[in-house]
Amino acid sequence: MRISLPDGSIKEMPDKASAGDVAAAIGPGLARAAIGAKVRRDGVETTVDLSGSLPGDCSIAILTEKNPESLQILRHSTAHVMAEAICRLWPQTKLVYGPPVEGGFYYDIDLDHRLTPDDFARIEAEMDKIIAEDRPFTRYEMSRDQGIAKVKAEGNPYKLENAERARGDVLSFYVTGNEPGKYWEDLCMGTHVPRTGRIGGFKVLSVSGAFLHGDATKQQLQRVNGTAFFNKKDLKEYLTQVEEARKRDHRKIGQELELFTIDPLVGSGLVLWKPKGAMVRLLLEDHLRQRLLAQGYQPVYTPHIGRLELYRTSGHFPYYRESQFPPLYDSESAKILNEIWIAVYEADKASPGAAVSDTAKALMEDLQRVDKPLHGKLIEFLDAGDAGSRKRLHAGHAEEVLQFVREQLQVSDGFLLKPMNCPQHARLYASEPRSYKNLPVRLAEFGTVYRYEQSGELSGMTRVRGFTQDDAHLFCTPEQLQKELADCLSLTRYVLELLGLTQYRVRIGLHDPADPKFIKNPEGWAQSEAALRAAVKESGMSATEEVGEAAFYGPKIDFVVKDCIGREWQLGTVQCDYNMAIRFGLEYIGRDNRPHRPIVIHRAPFGSMERFIGILIEHFEGAFPTWLAPVQVVVATISEKSTAYAEELVSLLRAKGLRVEMDDSPEKIGPKKHRARQMKVPYIAVVGEQEAAARKVNVNDRDDKRSGNMGLDAFVEMMVADNRPGGIVVSG
Amino acid sequence: MRISLPDGSIKEMPDKASAGDVAAAIGPGLARAAIGAKVRRDGVETTVDLSGSLPGDCSIAILTEKNPESLQILRHSTAHVMAEAICRLWPQTKLVYGPPVEGGFYYDIDLDHRLTPDDFARIEAEMDKIIAEDRPFTRYEMSRDQGIAKVKAEGNPYKLENAERARGDVLSFYVTGNEPGKYWEDLCMGTHVPRTGRIGGFKVLSVSGAFLHGDATKQQLQRVNGTAFFNKKDLKEYLTQVEEARKRDHRKIGQELELFTIDPLVGSGLVLWKPKGAMVRLLLEDHLRQRLLAQGYQPVYTPHIGRLELYRTSGHFPYYRESQFPPLYDSESAKILNEIWIAVYEADKASPGAAVSDTAKALMEDLQRVDKPLHGKLIEFLDAGDAGSRKRLHAGHAEEVLQFVREQLQVSDGFLLKPMNCPQHARLYASEPRSYKNLPVRLAEFGTVYRYEQSGELSGMTRVRGFTQDDAHLFCTPEQLQKELADCLSLTRYVLELLGLTQYRVRIGLHDPADPKFIKNPEGWAQSEAALRAAVKESGMSATEEVGEAAFYGPKIDFVVKDCIGREWQLGTVQCDYNMAIRFGLEYIGRDNRPHRPIVIHRAPFGSMERFIGILIEHFEGAFPTWLAPVQVVVATISEKSTAYAEELVSLLRAKGLRVEMDDSPEKIGPKKHRARQMKVPYIAVVGEQEAAARKVNVNDRDDKRSGNMGLDAFVEMMVADNRPGGIVVSG
Repeated sequence: MRISLPDGSIKEMPDKASAGDVAAAIGPGLARAAIGAKVRRDGVETTVDLSGSLPGDCSIAILTEKNPESLQILRHSTAHVMAEAICRLWPQTKLVYGPPVEGGFYYDIDLDHRLTPDDFARIEAEMDKIIAEDRPFTRYEMSRDQGIAKVKAEGNPYKLENAERARGDVLSFYVTGNEPGKYWEDLCMGTHVPRTGRIGGFKVLSVSGAFLHGDATKQQLQRVNGTAFFNKKDLKEYLTQVEEARKRDHRKIGQELELFTIDPLVGSGLVLWKPKGAMVRLLLEDHLRQRLLAQGYQPVYTPHIGRLELYRTSGHFPYYRESQFPPLYDSESAKILNEIWIAVYEADKASPGAAVSDTAKALMEDLQRVDKPLHGKLIEFLDAGDAGSRKRLHAGHAEEVLQFVREQLQVSDGFLLKPMNCPQHARLYASEPRSYKNLPVRLAEFGTVYRYEQSGELSGMTRVRGFTQDDAHLFCTPEQLQKELADCLSLTRYVLELLGLTQYRVRIGLHDPADPKFIKNPEGWAQSEAALRAAVKESGMSATEEVGEAAFYGPKIDFVVKDCIGREWQLGTVQCDYNMAIRFGLEYIGRDNRPHRPIVIHRAPFGSMERFIGILIEHFEGAFPTWLAPVQVVVATISEKSTAYAEELVSLLRAKGLRVEMDDSPEKIGPKKHRARQMKVPYIAVVGEQEAAARKVNVNDRDDKRSGNMGLDAFVEMMVADNRPGGIVVSG
Repeated sequence: MRISLPDGSIKEMPDKASAGDVAAAIGPGLARAAIGAKVRRDGVETTVDLSGSLPGDCSIAILTEKNPESLQILRHSTAHVMAEAICRLWPQTKLVYGPPVEGGFYYDIDLDHRLTPDDFARIEAEMDKIIAEDRPFTRYEMSRDQGIAKVKAEGNPYKLENAERARGDVLSFYVTGNEPGKYWEDLCMGTHVPRTGRIGGFKVLSVSGAFLHGDATKQQLQRVNGTAFFNKKDLKEYLTQVEEARKRDHRKIGQELELFTIDPLVGSGLVLWKPKGAMVRLLLEDHLRQRLLAQGYQPVYTPHIGRLELYRTSGHFPYYRESQFPPLYDSESAKILNEIWIAVYEADKASPGAAVSDTAKALMEDLQRVDKPLHGKLIEFLDAGDAGSRKRLHAGHAEEVLQFVREQLQVSDGFLLKPMNCPQHARLYASEPRSYKNLPVRLAEFGTVYRYEQSGELSGMTRVRGFTQDDAHLFCTPEQLQKELADCLSLTRYVLELLGLTQYRVRIGLHDPADPKFIKNPEGWAQSEAALRAAVKESGMSATEEVGEAAFYGPKIDFVVKDCIGREWQLGTVQCDYNMAIRFGLEYIGRDNRPHRPIVIHRAPFGSMERFIGILIEHFEGAFPTWLAPVQVVVATISEKSTAYAEELVSLLRAKGLRVEMDDSPEKIGPKKHRARQMKVPYIAVVGEQEAAARKVNVNDRDDKRSGNMGLDAFVEMMVADNRPGGIVVSG
């Protein structure tokens, strides 16, 4: 068979050759380094083991430790090793499901013995043995029926359910050894590393409760979590990072530093910004707003709800309704009519012109119950085509039905909590006649949007149900696109560097012309992808390109930012949009005196204020730079004899716009300093009789690293200088 | 009978004496000036004609033109005169209902002839005749049955309906003349002026459509609107004010100056702030925020939704639910359970312990349909007291049922768009332990709230469904109350005077100890009313006191502000609240080391940003003071020869933070100036070759009043000076 390699060359291999054979044919170094392979055949890409036979002519890429996918393969294999170890220790264990996940792997098990961290060392010791044996992972397959019979015979109901749920004609099993029956094995689709010896470093991390299929009404299981790496150094680095992350957890720091709270009575995932956190947000918003105004952005304010019809027009409803808060309906009949609309819409989407009478009929019964006249009107319309048979529901009249229902909904409809700001900005654009002379129009808003994330997904400020985007929509001509994109990139870099997030990479998401999910607009794609590339090049950044990662309506750029403990966060998105102008019929009059569609750019340098500040809390470990610190200096008195002088100092600092707290409590100076440091206040200005007499200040920083006397004026001057955003001047 | 007069004196009057007799007994001047009277007997106050017999011993206050109620009486009488005039001109007219209203009166009529403004002069001429005849208004009464028979015989079905709807044992009629049967008359409860000649100035203003009882499914009528005054001068002033108000209508100016728009696709009553309007709001918010921070307020941000349970706790739900957007329910069963809760709550409110089984049973049927287990749980609970009889629904167990349902709603409930910010601020207060040492706590937020006003009530920015309060809640000890109130008053005055709203009066709303709607807290009322009075006195303002006008939870102060055309607006409320701390269990640890309830102050100097800016637009007729103008100066070139110089000027101004637009279009300078003036831009800086050569600027103001040359630097300096908020320094 003919094997295409990534360098474009072709290798002839014998039938039944494996990916391992291909690696060996390329060279012994690659054969040693190989972990698995990516195989592409008939446009479908799969990851395979090194040992299995290749399916015939295909493209192949050998995976080594350098490929990020390899770590997932290793962790999946480590899950098997851990499961075997647990089964050795507790033979009554019933295994359920054990996948690799972000940062490691887990295995859900049903075991009467309640595992505790005290058991981890024993499990790890067993795993060490299995790894030391350096056994191969061997795949074998059976027909679906035979496989199910085999699993049934083994008596584990969970695995039986997995087998029955599996798709395809064959079931695959992985033996941790060279022969089925002789070694531990698991029903598994793969992929696995060649041998257990490849597991260089691993750790059992924790055990938690989990429900079968994540369903709280089902059986409760134990989830054993672990991680694995190709070598001990990576493991150690990872564990250090996890420990650092734990210390920096914004939920913990956010509470200690009184930055924010989440209150079940107000609602999960809804952030209440306490004064200190609100101050950080206010400072960031104000700073960005000043910059936006200077760059010709225009502020707008829009409401937090909009009519459902607005989101039917934009397409956000019902398409994204699973992640939206439920609508607020004007009336019961509006609710039912809208549900009829959804039923018809979805049936038509799934199979244009299909009969949708069952769902719709049931809903119409409900409508009849609450609003007879409306029901009558609807029936009359449905019967109009072919009296008595509701032809319009049966014979591909979905478009007409949808239109009719939308017209009825003009009278009484519902509202949606806004999941995005775009539709309202589009309507603001449309509220005035526009000419190429007035473009670009850049509408900016700190717009709070609401999305209904599952409660299990919520976490502090980073996974929330309400968040404020530093949103803007730029409406421009094709000629203006590249400059506007370049300015957006430059703004994003400014914002990141301002906050010391200087390590980032840029990803360009391009469309895949073969994938029908991307809107048909070859000229637009060519234009915007070229503009994005040129804008990135102009900014001097290097970027990776990822085909198929565009939004369905246009290409985009993501900034992937590394924080100070090496974790990566996706921040600052810039997207081109060719769809919104069509959906909302947006126009401008061009030089040719004819109407044209503007191109829309969505961009948000912070993304979400909640998430961004959550990340900043972790990045700075709560120790915000002086200009962002909620309290910048605590003036602490040694005794009441220096109170008057302390008050003078406080006044001087406040007059310069600094955020000062006075601590003239009767405590000793030690606890005063300690308290200010715990609150991560950048400076503690200690004043006693000596300082008052000499008109000096004893200056201490929050790290307890620096301490020394300064003259009063020099101290105020230093504070003013340190209050400059970014500390250093950042070029825009 | 014994008549108590306002000065405390008692007048003995013969039986059957009238209010007019009392006035005459006091003096002939009062007898001439009298319009009607207010009579108080057995704690009930009524307004009466001068001519009718008094009911016996009572307190009486004679009304003259000086009392605001008198104008209402006059307008009611003028409605009668207009109705008589219309009946004379179109005898087939069927009268429906003709009350006095804010600014005038109307009469709804059923008439086949469609009235147009062309008919108004004829109607007015007939009215002039009736007024010239100076006929008395004479009241007579009949027993209910007789009265109804009489109205029935007259054949007007509307009046018959009015008669049948009327309460009481007698029906009253008013003849415009001295004898029933001889003159025009109307079924009417009164009150009326003594004679038609008292109508000094009147005008028929407009005719519009109206539905019977305001119900769109009922008969359409014509509503003839008019106004009346005691003299022609007042009428003229009023008509001028109406005309001024029309010119200043913020809806018109808001569109012309591109300040805001309202879009049916987004929703009625939801304001989209365009860039220029958003800039005004931003400037006001920023300015106020700076001041708040300097005064020790702390910023917070809270979400725009909250769980229903939050508002059950605060009492905003279901109490105010008619004016709230409908809830967003997590699930169908949550919706029904909440409705059961409401049904029980309301039944219990109406009549504690009453059987509420009918409504609740119907709802329970629904619950059974959508959530069997929950329904089962509820039935089990209801049966627990006395199996089978649902005793808990029947026998005063409402509190228990409510509590049970609330517990069930912990799992799945709904959310409310927040109608107020208070409950979330209360939870922020409660999120930390508080001590008297840290009080007062002043939490401030520009919080956008949503209320479901009826669509007929909506108007531009002043009557909306979503608005942003410049809200704050101050939590303080009783000792701190007076100072905090005084600071709130001073802040409100600062804000009003900053915007040239220097004419205002202050109303103190006190509780009425006899009225059960006010919470029982004699000590609190005494404390807070004394503190409010003292705070007002301290601020040197005079105030009127109105008993019974307090909020149910505490006394309040309103600022009633006069705009430049003399209209009054209620702005800037400061309220004390003794209820919120109880509802939310708010506490602080006092000096005595024991927990105490803080007193809460609600206050919002602007009130609503939408309404306030709507009023400002009218007050300034769109010509905002320079510091608030969205565009402060247009730099207009005479030809392209001065473009470079114009750009230099623009840069100089922008560097000073001024909002500048450049007009270097190829048009003539006349249209450029005209356009800038139409947009009410404070300054137009014209630059041509001459100005460039001399480094001068030809400065024009928006009123076309001032024009002259200035040096470049002097112009920039003047602009900077004029950009100071308030123009003049206002003491805080």
